[in-house]
Amino acid sequence: MVPQVQEHLDALKERLLVMGGLAEEQVRLVTAALVDRDAALASRVQSGDQRINGLHIEIDQRCVKLLALHQPVAVDLRAVVAAVKINTDLERVGDLAVNVAEAVQRYLHHTPLRPLDHIPRMADLAQRMLRDALDAYVRREVALAQNVLDTDDIVDALKSQVSIDLVPVMKGAPETIEPSLDLILIARHLERIADHATNIAEDVIFMVSARDVRHHGPPG
Amino acid sequence: MVPQVQEHLDALKERLLVMGGLAEEQVRLVTAALVDRDAALASRVQSGDQRINGLHIEIDQRCVKLLALHQPVAVDLRAVVAAVKINTDLERVGDLAVNVAEAVQRYLHHTPLRPLDHIPRMADLAQRMLRDALDAYVRREVALAQNVLDTDDIVDALKSQVSIDLVPVMKGAPETIEPSLDLILIARHLERIADHATNIAEDVIFMVSARDVRHHGPPG
Repeated sequence: MVPQVQEHLDALKERLLVMGGLAEEQVRLVTAALVDRDAALASRVQSGDQRINGLHIEIDQRCVKLLALHQPVAVDLRAVVAAVKINTDLERVGDLAVNVAEAVQRYLHHTPLRPLDHIPRMADLAQRMLRDALDAYVRREVALAQNVLDTDDIVDALKSQVSIDLVPVMKGAPETIEPSLDLILIARHLERIADHATNIAEDVIFMVSARDVRHHGPPG
Repeated sequence: MVPQVQEHLDALKERLLVMGGLAEEQVRLVTAALVDRDAALASRVQSGDQRINGLHIEIDQRCVKLLALHQPVAVDLRAVVAAVKINTDLERVGDLAVNVAEAVQRYLHHTPLRPLDHIPRMADLAQRMLRDALDAYVRREVALAQNVLDTDDIVDALKSQVSIDLVPVMKGAPETIEPSLDLILIARHLERIADHATNIAEDVIFMVSARDVRHHGPPG
């Protein structure tokens, strides 16, 4: 029984990596669409979500089947439960890339605003966080997962900076209000993508160490 | 074995209902804080998230234990996998209520804008969706879950209307830009709460009928 569980777990990991790779690529492409003002590329991102959705359903079914037929235990059981959650997170990343693409389409109807430094930087960090979180899952490596948690603070700070920079622009020129709203929205979507990578990293730490690193705010 | 699985499943349902009730209450309170301009109530929502976080960890552990010790099958297995996901959704609803509370705190520093009709209406709908989605889970009732999916379109339309209404206000008076941004953000957070209710409803339909209602967009 045990080697069979291992085989199915390896297949599950492989599918999650494929899905993660697609999600990362969507984030990369939609950022290029924004920076290069390429509406056709944004459209490609919008239609590209179908493959991620197909994997979402496939992986969900794999997890249920693995639990039903092979009854994994201990860290292997936690790995399957983590896979159920990671699958949900990656599917949302795909949706968010589509939301960014929609905002990019609207943004491209306006005169470009100031240079967009923070947004491509956020996208780079979010992609790296996704990659590291999935590597941490596959290799069951807590230190790498911890890295992802630390990077999330940088992304949060960049997101706030985007609004701080744009409010005076909007106040000075009403015609910048609509494109600014789209950039603020894009920054929020990217921050949520980084949040999903953070969720994955937290699940990895729980899976490996059965230690819960979630919810460490001060008590209410 | 089977009656024991049933007992544990019932306990799991009960805990999810408690968590759902807390999440709904947070949405209700934070909307009251906005409408009544009550900063103290917004603070209460911010600290009230701790109980939801505690349940999140407890329910996760229950699910893993139930899978490990009682190896449920068929619809019972799908019910536990659904509980893992519903637990995550409810925890995010709690986080989003806190995000709304933060935006409310900022909003209260400004002169109030126009009447806020759409936002309380969105909050009411989101609460009802959460309640119906959880009832559908407990009673394994597909028709009720389908209702939740239908209501989501209304919430999406209201969210768009909030931005459509506020852009001309912002263009006409620069001092309204910051409070308007907060209202737009609050509307987005409420829409995401409704999205989480939608996720729960989709999970219920999959659990009951093993039919996947997710991802029915046109192929890319």
